[in-house]
Amino acid sequence: MLLAGCVDSKPQVLSSWEEGAVKAAIIDFVVGATTEGGPHFVPVADRIAVFDHDGTLWAERPEYFQFLMIYEQVHAQAADHPEWQEQQPFKAVLEHDTEYLEGLDYAAARTLSAAVSGGMTTADYMTLSHDFATRSLHPEFNTRYADLRYLPMLELLQYLERHSFRVFIVSGGDMGFIRGFAELLYGVPRDRVIGSSRSNMFVDDSPLILRGKKYASMNVGANKVLNIDLHIGRPPVFAVGNSDGDLEMLAYTAAHDGFVLLLSHDDDEREYGYTNGAEIALQKARAEGWTIASMRDDFDPIFVQIN
Amino acid sequence: MLLAGCVDSKPQVLSSWEEGAVKAAIIDFVVGATTEGGPHFVPVADRIAVFDHDGTLWAERPEYFQFLMIYEQVHAQAADHPEWQEQQPFKAVLEHDTEYLEGLDYAAARTLSAAVSGGMTTADYMTLSHDFATRSLHPEFNTRYADLRYLPMLELLQYLERHSFRVFIVSGGDMGFIRGFAELLYGVPRDRVIGSSRSNMFVDDSPLILRGKKYASMNVGANKVLNIDLHIGRPPVFAVGNSDGDLEMLAYTAAHDGFVLLLSHDDDEREYGYTNGAEIALQKARAEGWTIASMRDDFDPIFVQIN
Repeated sequence: MLLAGCVDSKPQVLSSWEEGAVKAAIIDFVVGATTEGGPHFVPVADRIAVFDHDGTLWAERPEYFQFLMIYEQVHAQAADHPEWQEQQPFKAVLEHDTEYLEGLDYAAARTLSAAVSGGMTTADYMTLSHDFATRSLHPEFNTRYADLRYLPMLELLQYLERHSFRVFIVSGGDMGFIRGFAELLYGVPRDRVIGSSRSNMFVDDSPLILRGKKYASMNVGANKVLNIDLHIGRPPVFAVGNSDGDLEMLAYTAAHDGFVLLLSHDDDEREYGYTNGAEIALQKARAEGWTIASMRDDFDPIFVQIN
Repeated sequence: MLLAGCVDSKPQVLSSWEEGAVKAAIIDFVVGATTEGGPHFVPVADRIAVFDHDGTLWAERPEYFQFLMIYEQVHAQAADHPEWQEQQPFKAVLEHDTEYLEGLDYAAARTLSAAVSGGMTTADYMTLSHDFATRSLHPEFNTRYADLRYLPMLELLQYLERHSFRVFIVSGGDMGFIRGFAELLYGVPRDRVIGSSRSNMFVDDSPLILRGKKYASMNVGANKVLNIDLHIGRPPVFAVGNSDGDLEMLAYTAAHDGFVLLLSHDDDEREYGYTNGAEIALQKARAEGWTIASMRDDFDPIFVQIN
């Protein structure tokens, strides 16, 4: 920390955000929301902030990390399932058939997921994802997945919490997957993690809850809004996302005079440059005047550990 | 508050709880859970406490207050529905046909509820229940429903919060009904209220969420456990209930070495004396050695405002 009074080109908040319009807009909003008596004051009870997870709080390439964990589990459990050697989509995973896996649809991904985690207890699944996030290595960056959290977003979470915002993660990913590491990696307690959820089973008179094989709620699109209402009970005033699956959540927040931030993956050197899956969100953000953060121009550094 | 050093037959915590085995058991558990290095220490992240609502935090007779609000709405909306005069179960409500209403099954109750609140926004429904709880009068006590909260339970909520427990309400009642007043009446934020929930609808590009006409999840029995896992993500270590619908939640907490408290409605003078709907829970509590609190012997006073 620099001493007060020293000349510093970066203020001490959000120090991994480059100076510019985006950082200024974030700070303006938070200052306005916390200035009692001011025209933009937001009471503490209403200071709800929602963050998408994959591609917003950490990277999501070459595939969603949750899928990479599932592939890892297919390998780990293959000895117990000799039939997988000849059976798709298991065969493709075991043979590292990238071409096949790139064309994998959600139904096939769910088949894999149900095979390796259906029937597991929800507690064991959280342990699995915790270990994966903190020990396994990303195939391209060759660093722990935890290291691929975005440092500017971590700072933003903490900045909001310091100003009495209550931060929730609202992700299309499996709720248990993210809960396995959310407290450790983001300081977000499990009850503030909303994700896709399964039709689980309670084994009567036991301490066990078993993961169902089917999803009860896929937390994308309009379901993000419905699940925000189900889990939180009030609209967010601050929302961050990066893809078309976040569109309804961002629009819902904007409709309540909230601050909307869309993260653009435009840094092909330090991360991945892509717009597919975010075309509509980017168009809408421009049309509505939502704030668009550029990973190339606004983030320095990008990751918690590398760069 | 008495000055330190004064002789006082009641310690200054839980002062509306009579001295005795029940109060001592509660305090013992909390002291053990918060004594670092001790054999019963519970880390802060795991200090989850769950409370049933009707009959646990406030009264539930002559009928669940949620039903009384629905009846009130049938009267209020009757002018727009002349057909209700001849159509059951509306007719019975409008004619105060107590005999018919006592025999009302859940399907008929849901018909009433859907008629008066289906299609309403979730925000408007919370305003409705807030106004009902703080303004309408109970038909027998002739006092506001808010006044019929149990003071000993309010003190217990606050006692737990002071010891870094995070309190959740886990009720068979409608989630929106309880959220309408939970912050004001219990200091429990909306995101810590878990109840029965409907298949709601999001009106795209608008700030509105409309209540569905059907329930998606009835939060009783095993569903209480599944919804605790869905909303909280970890087992409770402290659970309070009063009926058979709480049984699985209490057993789940006990199975995780948690403290289980069952409230017995045995005070026919100051409240209502009844065991129906709680027979199995009382039997199980005795068999398992769970703590049973007697409203007659352990509560003084019972209510926030009267007695």
